[in-house]
Amino acid sequence: MNNVKVGIWGFGAMGSGMAEMLLKKTGVDIVSICDRNEHRVGKDMFDVLEIEKGDRASVIITADPEEAFKEKSCDVVLLATDSFTRHAFEKIKFIAERKMNVISTAEEMAYPKAQEPELAKEIDKIAKENNITVLGTGINPGFVLDLLILALTGTCETVDHIKAARVNDLSPFGKAVMIEQGVGVTKDEFESGVKDNSIAGHVGFPESIMMITDGIGWNLDKVDETREPIMSTVHRETKYAEVMPGNVAGCRQCGFGYVDGELKIEMEHPQQILPHLEGQETGDYVWIKGNPNINLEIKPEIPGGIGTIAMVVNSIPHVMNAHSGLKTMLDIPVPRAIMSDMRNFIEESSKIVK
Amino acid sequence: MNNVKVGIWGFGAMGSGMAEMLLKKTGVDIVSICDRNEHRVGKDMFDVLEIEKGDRASVIITADPEEAFKEKSCDVVLLATDSFTRHAFEKIKFIAERKMNVISTAEEMAYPKAQEPELAKEIDKIAKENNITVLGTGINPGFVLDLLILALTGTCETVDHIKAARVNDLSPFGKAVMIEQGVGVTKDEFESGVKDNSIAGHVGFPESIMMITDGIGWNLDKVDETREPIMSTVHRETKYAEVMPGNVAGCRQCGFGYVDGELKIEMEHPQQILPHLEGQETGDYVWIKGNPNINLEIKPEIPGGIGTIAMVVNSIPHVMNAHSGLKTMLDIPVPRAIMSDMRNFIEESSKIVK
Repeated sequence: MNNVKVGIWGFGAMGSGMAEMLLKKTGVDIVSICDRNEHRVGKDMFDVLEIEKGDRASVIITADPEEAFKEKSCDVVLLATDSFTRHAFEKIKFIAERKMNVISTAEEMAYPKAQEPELAKEIDKIAKENNITVLGTGINPGFVLDLLILALTGTCETVDHIKAARVNDLSPFGKAVMIEQGVGVTKDEFESGVKDNSIAGHVGFPESIMMITDGIGWNLDKVDETREPIMSTVHRETKYAEVMPGNVAGCRQCGFGYVDGELKIEMEHPQQILPHLEGQETGDYVWIKGNPNINLEIKPEIPGGIGTIAMVVNSIPHVMNAHSGLKTMLDIPVPRAIMSDMRNFIEESSKIVK
Repeated sequence: MNNVKVGIWGFGAMGSGMAEMLLKKTGVDIVSICDRNEHRVGKDMFDVLEIEKGDRASVIITADPEEAFKEKSCDVVLLATDSFTRHAFEKIKFIAERKMNVISTAEEMAYPKAQEPELAKEIDKIAKENNITVLGTGINPGFVLDLLILALTGTCETVDHIKAARVNDLSPFGKAVMIEQGVGVTKDEFESGVKDNSIAGHVGFPESIMMITDGIGWNLDKVDETREPIMSTVHRETKYAEVMPGNVAGCRQCGFGYVDGELKIEMEHPQQILPHLEGQETGDYVWIKGNPNINLEIKPEIPGGIGTIAMVVNSIPHVMNAHSGLKTMLDIPVPRAIMSDMRNFIEESSKIVK
């Protein structure tokens, strides 16, 4: 079998991270990269990544999708450009119509039916017409607050209530994330930022919650979300943000899933800089009430960046092997690390680039 | 769609527990039970379970598999009779040849290739010839020390080393388990019990370890196992066992997986009565060294009995929907709780009993 041929669309932190991961694996080649950032266009991927090229072929970054993605030129294209299904849609369609599989990092694409049921149907239709598979995944949505919880429920006779939290430290992130999460602003500024959506918080609660309810067969009435400021009593400072005592250290976002009129799923995702300064440990937490009860902790939390990169790359074999259509984490076998030649995990008949 | 029709072979703690769970679900009927225990044969399942029958049909327990399982009389038969593949094999063949799916609780069947590669091939062949699916699962092997670990590796770029532990309390179990685990004996008695295999300990380390190495693509050289006495410094007593200070409270079993000459997987499964009397908390633990490192705790541990029962029942839709052949937890989507009509999770074309 030829090496697996991968294209990457979007070469920011996620896309370039996937390239770095793929370059450490065997049985797989990156064959094209599409990115519109003027500092990267026209350059060799290896130069942008500052990785020794060796005897590997250059991959010149292009801003033109037509040039990057010819029909059946890749087995799979990793799409790391958007958070919302409606923004990713035309790109997914573009790749699907060129008869290549797609894995999207768009948070809404983890369960697009939740907020874009019409587009989800359309994607499924296009994927089937072109005999390819489309999947959205990442660390969250995609794993921590949905697939991991679903896996735990597999050990339950019955589930009555699900609560989960992902408590993380934003300190490693840059200016854009600080603004999105309201780090350093006053309480009033935070509240007006929430109103005008400039403080956007986490995208993915409706997707995680509906993946769970569909997955176990609960009838979801509605999802509510709240965004509250995490007020700091101490001075906090990172490279990209400063928080004065009495100001906002981050955003505590919560999601609530109602089933037959009852609150059945509660999720909390407080994101702030330097939570340990006020004694807050970071971690991923799941508490299931049912038979049996289950209490899970992962401390510290599975990191967001590498977690998303790994979930996408590790899903490549499953997406290639899957039947055509729009798939979710409910449909494919659980992705796992790929520690040998990627071709070992792929059925011959699933190969697009022969 | 007709209700899912389930047969149960073996009506001990596991088989009867599955029946109790199934009777609480909708869209599924138990249609036959085979069991050789003379106290149960000829009786109605509802009387044995002491559950109100209501307007449901009687299910009379029979010792004769020919009577219990006619061709295509069940969509799936749950086989809860054995721990070892070679003991379960003829029963699996019997069901498969009558063109019904099989889910086995036999620990070795969670990954039969590990210790019975020839039988695994034979089961796969028979399953394909008869267009049905065979799966082995349970809480462990089947989830805690394999599938859960594999799922966590999906968030990893690379994995260097895996350590995991399942620390549980044997206190609820009966006399047979006390003997198998050496509870209450002297150190000398324990050591001779290990030698003659009357103290058998946990079945499943080779299966869990090979499921992980195959799952992530490590080349497994060998699996070593040890069984050591857990010596008690205090007096411990349950309904079925008494341990004097200086005697054995249980069995600490360890499994070691070597990959290319290096110790890469370490598993520990200490099973004893009343571990809290010496300050030992029970729980399930996973520590992955890689990028990223992951530290997971589930406290207390997911209970063994209900966990196995739930994993088997919750796998029914995935087994019915799967392609024919011998499958493992590597092949099917992750099982999750079934909180609505079971038929909602099953494709029309997967139904055997029309």
